[in-house]
Amino acid sequence: MYHKIKKHTHILLHPTKEESRWDKVINGFIIILILLNLVAVILETEPELATNHAKLFHDFDVFSVFIFSVEYILRVWSCTYEAKYKHWLWGRLRYMFTWGALIDLVAILPFYLGTVKLFDLRELRLLRLVRLLRIFRLTSYMKSAQVIANVFKNRFQELLISLVLTSGLIIIASCLIYFAEHTAQPEKFGSIPRTLWWSVVTLATIGYGDMVPITVTGKILTGIIAMAGVAFFALPAGIITAGFLEEIRKVKKHHTTICPHCGLPIEHEVHADH
Amino acid sequence: MYHKIKKHTHILLHPTKEESRWDKVINGFIIILILLNLVAVILETEPELATNHAKLFHDFDVFSVFIFSVEYILRVWSCTYEAKYKHWLWGRLRYMFTWGALIDLVAILPFYLGTVKLFDLRELRLLRLVRLLRIFRLTSYMKSAQVIANVFKNRFQELLISLVLTSGLIIIASCLIYFAEHTAQPEKFGSIPRTLWWSVVTLATIGYGDMVPITVTGKILTGIIAMAGVAFFALPAGIITAGFLEEIRKVKKHHTTICPHCGLPIEHEVHADH
Amino acid sequence: MYHKIKKHTHILLHPTKEESRWDKVINGFIIILILLNLVAVILETEPELATNHAKLFHDFDVFSVFIFSVEYILRVWSCTYEAKYKHWLWGRLRYMFTWGALIDLVAILPFYLGTVKLFDLRELRLLRLVRLLRIFRLTSYMKSAQVIANVFKNRFQELLISLVLTSGLIIIASCLIYFAEHTAQPEKFGSIPRTLWWSVVTLATIGYGDMVPITVTGKILTGIIAMAGVAFFALPAGIITAGFLEEIRKVKKHHTTICPHCGLPIEHEVHADH
Amino acid sequence: MYHKIKKHTHILLHPTKEESRWDKVINGFIIILILLNLVAVILETEPELATNHAKLFHDFDVFSVFIFSVEYILRVWSCTYEAKYKHWLWGRLRYMFTWGALIDLVAILPFYLGTVKLFDLRELRLLRLVRLLRIFRLTSYMKSAQVIANVFKNRFQELLISLVLTSGLIIIASCLIYFAEHTAQPEKFGSIPRTLWWSVVTLATIGYGDMVPITVTGKILTGIIAMAGVAFFALPAGIITAGFLEEIRKVKKHHTTICPHCGLPIEHEVHADH
Repeated sequence: MYHKIKKHTHILLHPTKEESRWDKVINGFIIILILLNLVAVILETEPELATNHAKLFHDFDVFSVFIFSVEYILRVWSCTYEAKYKHWLWGRLRYMFTWGALIDLVAILPFYLGTVKLFDLRELRLLRLVRLLRIFRLTSYMKSAQVIANVFKNRFQELLISLVLTSGLIIIASCLIYFAEHTAQPEKFGSIPRTLWWSVVTLATIGYGDMVPITVTGKILTGIIAMAGVAFFALPAGIITAGFLEEIRKVKKHHTTICPHCGLPIEHEVHADH
Repeated sequence: MYHKIKKHTHILLHPTKEESRWDKVINGFIIILILLNLVAVILETEPELATNHAKLFHDFDVFSVFIFSVEYILRVWSCTYEAKYKHWLWGRLRYMFTWGALIDLVAILPFYLGTVKLFDLRELRLLRLVRLLRIFRLTSYMKSAQVIANVFKNRFQELLISLVLTSGLIIIASCLIYFAEHTAQPEKFGSIPRTLWWSVVTLATIGYGDMVPITVTGKILTGIIAMAGVAFFALPAGIITAGFLEEIRKVKKHHTTICPHCGLPIEHEVHADH
Repeated sequence: MYHKIKKHTHILLHPTKEESRWDKVINGFIIILILLNLVAVILETEPELATNHAKLFHDFDVFSVFIFSVEYILRVWSCTYEAKYKHWLWGRLRYMFTWGALIDLVAILPFYLGTVKLFDLRELRLLRLVRLLRIFRLTSYMKSAQVIANVFKNRFQELLISLVLTSGLIIIASCLIYFAEHTAQPEKFGSIPRTLWWSVVTLATIGYGDMVPITVTGKILTGIIAMAGVAFFALPAGIITAGFLEEIRKVKKHHTTICPHCGLPIEHEVHADH
Repeated sequence: MYHKIKKHTHILLHPTKEESRWDKVINGFIIILILLNLVAVILETEPELATNHAKLFHDFDVFSVFIFSVEYILRVWSCTYEAKYKHWLWGRLRYMFTWGALIDLVAILPFYLGTVKLFDLRELRLLRLVRLLRIFRLTSYMKSAQVIANVFKNRFQELLISLVLTSGLIIIASCLIYFAEHTAQPEKFGSIPRTLWWSVVTLATIGYGDMVPITVTGKILTGIIAMAGVAFFALPAGIITAGFLEEIRKVKKHHTTICPHCGLPIEHEVHADH
């Protein structure tokens, strides 16, 4: 009986791919609770909301920590069901020092430390968000996420070089515009570090408008820089698109060739991205 | 004679692919009328125009509703021509509860309800725009529209993940800039929800300039965030482009060649993406 | 002798692909003159420059018109060298009514009409720019320009649909933001037509900052609209990229298959974009 | 012994692909020193930092020049190890007039000239950055950088044409908006050259907000121009993406399969872009 409960607890809290209905309910509940924690942390920085709904925020915090604590204790208790954490003490201790369990602990510990007035670790509540990574553990979105991750991994070098090129363009643009504008607008373009801000805002095409060239030279240079920027900032888009196509095509295909020696057909696999 | 008129009315109002000249004229007229309704609804929100040309707007509204009502009545009357709406009463009632007929009704009903001073449902006139969907029912653009729809459907998961990634970046950016700026500009970056607005405007590279970081930390962080944003916001572009190429190539072709040596035909498949 | 001069004049002014050195010099000179005319027209709108350098601008105008007139007269005179404009009168008249000759005439006529104080047609000088189209007649860039033109032509339907989609998004965004903001900022978001301007500036990610949502609802809606805008405005980029790849691959390739009936190889052409 | 030292000095300062540990340390140190020089040059333009930390900047400058001088002297001294600079005098002189050596000299010379108060050539310190090119001489990033360079080289014509097209759009936009706005805002849109600045800022979607159309005509034209701009500025992205895909696929592969029926090998080519 005791073992059966432990087994079911373990399965509920460590869902696998063939998850049952209850798994989904519990996991969905925990994920929604984490997302609500995210919303609460964000909203609580708004002074008006924080003072008007102080009790609500506090109660929700207590409730969340209570649920997370129960979940944590149940996980540690039921982990002995797994072969590698079999021992009632060492197994549990070893489980407690896995990354997953440490993250879960870090998510609730600040609350208790805050209660005993040791530290004000309220900001550490943001660590609860790390638990959101569990979303990826389950869903069928795993495969698509893998594709995106592969694109960034396979094209890492090209992306890095395009980062170097854009950084170079930003620095060159800053130097040019600094020399063109620093006499006309000494308070705004008074140094290259200050002009760097203008370069980033302009080349990323954000254009806040807090720093704008006013000299003719500065405007002509900005025109040329903006044109170059369009080509350079198209590089990451091009690299990522090419990477996607590569990933999508990495599907095996079967080809049939006729052997010229005996005239019989041969089936052989050819990767589509050959 | 009566039947012939009904048949022709039905055909005129339910054009098929092999549409005749009159079909085109009537359909073109109705579509232009709907577009003019759209323009009228938009322009009427401009107080100056609304008061100066009140009569014009009202007359056009009456005219449109009259045409739409006549079309609706003719459709309901002639629907019995179709086998499945054959019965003179039940067939027509069943036709009136199809989506197409309900949309047509909703487009004219607010006018009559407004006339009898029951409700002020003028805003519901926007529902007439739903009728624009009929454009897609006819034209040869259907195939191209299908390609675009397929791209969004087939790449839905990747697009959703890139949405999650950009949302994550927006939230992280808000937290970072909030901590960097909220002491220097408490009225603008006073809370994370307020900084979220800045994140969206910056990462979508809109850059209104109503909220601009002024601290050195904030500016450096913005630079890094903007660079990351370029790569992350290139994801949807890459996914959509890859999807387009997939769609365009999804046509398998069979080729048949005649062997010049023996004169017999050879069938061989050529994959569209070879 | 007379004929030889006419022949050489004709060849010099109608260069073909195998152009000689003198052709290049003359053509380069004419093209540079047209570009300088463009610069002059642009600079002359600057009042300060126009008054300070009035004589320079006028002299350059007279000089340009003189050169263009001489060229025009020589073209008309030497056109009889070509078989289809053989007749000394009708041939020349027919040549004068070809598009090329009419454009050349339109480029110089305003000057003469302005001299006799009939009309002030100075703005028509911009028509001289049409002559720049001749650049495409000569250069090896013709092939690359053709590729770009093909991309726009082949993907026309998809581009039109993405235009319809973005237009739809712009209108929907205007309606939503109008309802969210028109009470808070009645002078800026006072009507849907005025809000349309905001939509275009925001969705094209220009973001001048002259109109910025200030209500919470407006900001949240803007966030959603901006995200949707990123996906929708990625459509043209995707379509154009896919079109480019199609164009580039439209190169024939030779494949060799072994006939299964007789065992001999067959060469057959397969278009690379199969 | 003397020769052995020279040989090792030469190898350390001219690392090849199979670089040893010491090569890496020395090269890494030099590259970091160059990057720190870049940072120092940028920061020194900030007046506050320059005055407060004048000594630090000067000392770092002396230190850098000392290291670079030592490196330069060692290079010139050890170059005779190479066959083509064998002669103790002419070999060294010839080496000193290679591009690499001249750049190294230019990087340190301004300091010495500045010391003897001949010229104030402090800005020439920026030339030290040219030495950063050596990063590319070594690393495995060379291949990826080559891919990016190839993309720009192979697609040069198309990129140039898209530059011409966007320039054309910018000029047309300037003319249109100048005619629409110059009476309403004579101080801002008072001439086409001034409006050119607006066109660049708008079409590159920077949108500083220093110049904004206010007339209805100007706003409608801006809407149309912005839409056209999205399509035109998607061209470079499309061209670069297509170029990337071409580069990645430009690897022809030969496959050899053993026929299972007769045991003989069959060679067949597989085009990389199949």
